[in-house]
Amino acid sequence: MPVSLLTVGRFVDFPVSGNVKHSYEGTSANSADLDVPRKTRRKGLIVAAKPVAKRLVVLVSGSGTNLQALLDAIETTGVEAYGAEIVAVGADRGGIEGLARAERAGLPTFVCRVKEYGARDEWDAALAEAVAAYEPDLVVSAGFMKIVGKEFLARFGGRFINTHPALLPSFPGAHGVRDALAYGARVTGCTVHFVDDGVDTGPIIAQGVVEIRDEDDESALHERIKEVERRLLVDVVGRLARNGYRIEGRKVVIQ
Amino acid sequence: MPVSLLTVGRFVDFPVSGNVKHSYEGTSANSADLDVPRKTRRKGLIVAAKPVAKRLVVLVSGSGTNLQALLDAIETTGVEAYGAEIVAVGADRGGIEGLARAERAGLPTFVCRVKEYGARDEWDAALAEAVAAYEPDLVVSAGFMKIVGKEFLARFGGRFINTHPALLPSFPGAHGVRDALAYGARVTGCTVHFVDDGVDTGPIIAQGVVEIRDEDDESALHERIKEVERRLLVDVVGRLARNGYRIEGRKVVIQ
Repeated sequence: MPVSLLTVGRFVDFPVSGNVKHSYEGTSANSADLDVPRKTRRKGLIVAAKPVAKRLVVLVSGSGTNLQALLDAIETTGVEAYGAEIVAVGADRGGIEGLARAERAGLPTFVCRVKEYGARDEWDAALAEAVAAYEPDLVVSAGFMKIVGKEFLARFGGRFINTHPALLPSFPGAHGVRDALAYGARVTGCTVHFVDDGVDTGPIIAQGVVEIRDEDDESALHERIKEVERRLLVDVVGRLARNGYRIEGRKVVIQ
Repeated sequence: MPVSLLTVGRFVDFPVSGNVKHSYEGTSANSADLDVPRKTRRKGLIVAAKPVAKRLVVLVSGSGTNLQALLDAIETTGVEAYGAEIVAVGADRGGIEGLARAERAGLPTFVCRVKEYGARDEWDAALAEAVAAYEPDLVVSAGFMKIVGKEFLARFGGRFINTHPALLPSFPGAHGVRDALAYGARVTGCTVHFVDDGVDTGPIIAQGVVEIRDEDDESALHERIKEVERRLLVDVVGRLARNGYRIEGRKVVIQ
């Protein structure tokens, strides 16, 4: 049951997962009927169908604090009210706290290690396949430290979300916090964006601001950025899931 | 009577203007005595000397709304409490509202047109000379649309302040507002910085944040940035003047 989604200037199908049971019968539904909450006609009566929670796959490489923020928000708010549920957690390495958090939450996990594949493209395709097996609506990089390739972006472009600890386009790359301090910026923050084939160049969904203090070092500043980042990510993923969105060129419009 | 000022990693003289009358006698004064407010010893009595207001030359190219914000703040706060006074206003063109504002405020004005000089370097040297005639402690570019050259920076580097309508290092250059919108940034703002020999690359003094709204066009966004910019500039110039400052590498420390 595809829902229309405008991405980077064209309409594509936003696949609603196949294992969510739809209860309507006797009428045809078009995409407008899939608004959440939606009403469907059953044997002449109008009944409210349950909102369809979007399916999230979360990718981690480390401690998984952003994953935990999502888990906590979904538990506190409830899957239906939040609009999304985590259906699996993937990683590029084993033995990390991010995977342990997933297991404690009873979620399936998978690991795709680059070194287990002959070429980077093969790893990329395998990662895409592993993620696709869980039929996600959105994929969230929550501190995932690998850059994905063409195959992954071909399948999940326009619905693969990353966070970056700076106000992009300032300070892209692996040292966004350190670079902002070295530059002498007075404000920095974090950016939640869709991943494209550049480094931290994809369409921006939301940004949060953090003031730089005279006494800041990289660690202290990064901690304050992470606090804002967790709240922003939780807010953004929920709004994308509940409301739907369009990507018009570089502009992300949450509906 | 020079006051020590650390700029870009070295100590330089911060010239306090020669036409401010110092009233102390009978003792020698070192630079530490020049803190504002300072006390001087006169014939055995401790008396409070008037704080020495810093001298500002403001450069404009257009309507001069930032100039007006400084004029209003100084009039409202009082020269001594604000810590600085405007002693002259310069422009690169005639017939602009910025010059008219200065004349209404009873301030001397001067115009240095690029086309009146054989080479850009000659214009730059003439501008530096015209500014220097007013013995400024700080020079403020308030919408001045020309890039100054080596001679100007040799004389006023580390005390020539510019404002830019973006959160540098994002969106430098002549179209900071338009470029932020085109990029799809969710926050932008303004940066008050010291001018160096790059385009909007000098040490940052302060930054103000403005959220970008879905419905923003360049004009609406620029108006909100200008509001923040005026308040920030007034605040920053006053603090620099009252407290003094150091530039350590790229970090500006207001004392």
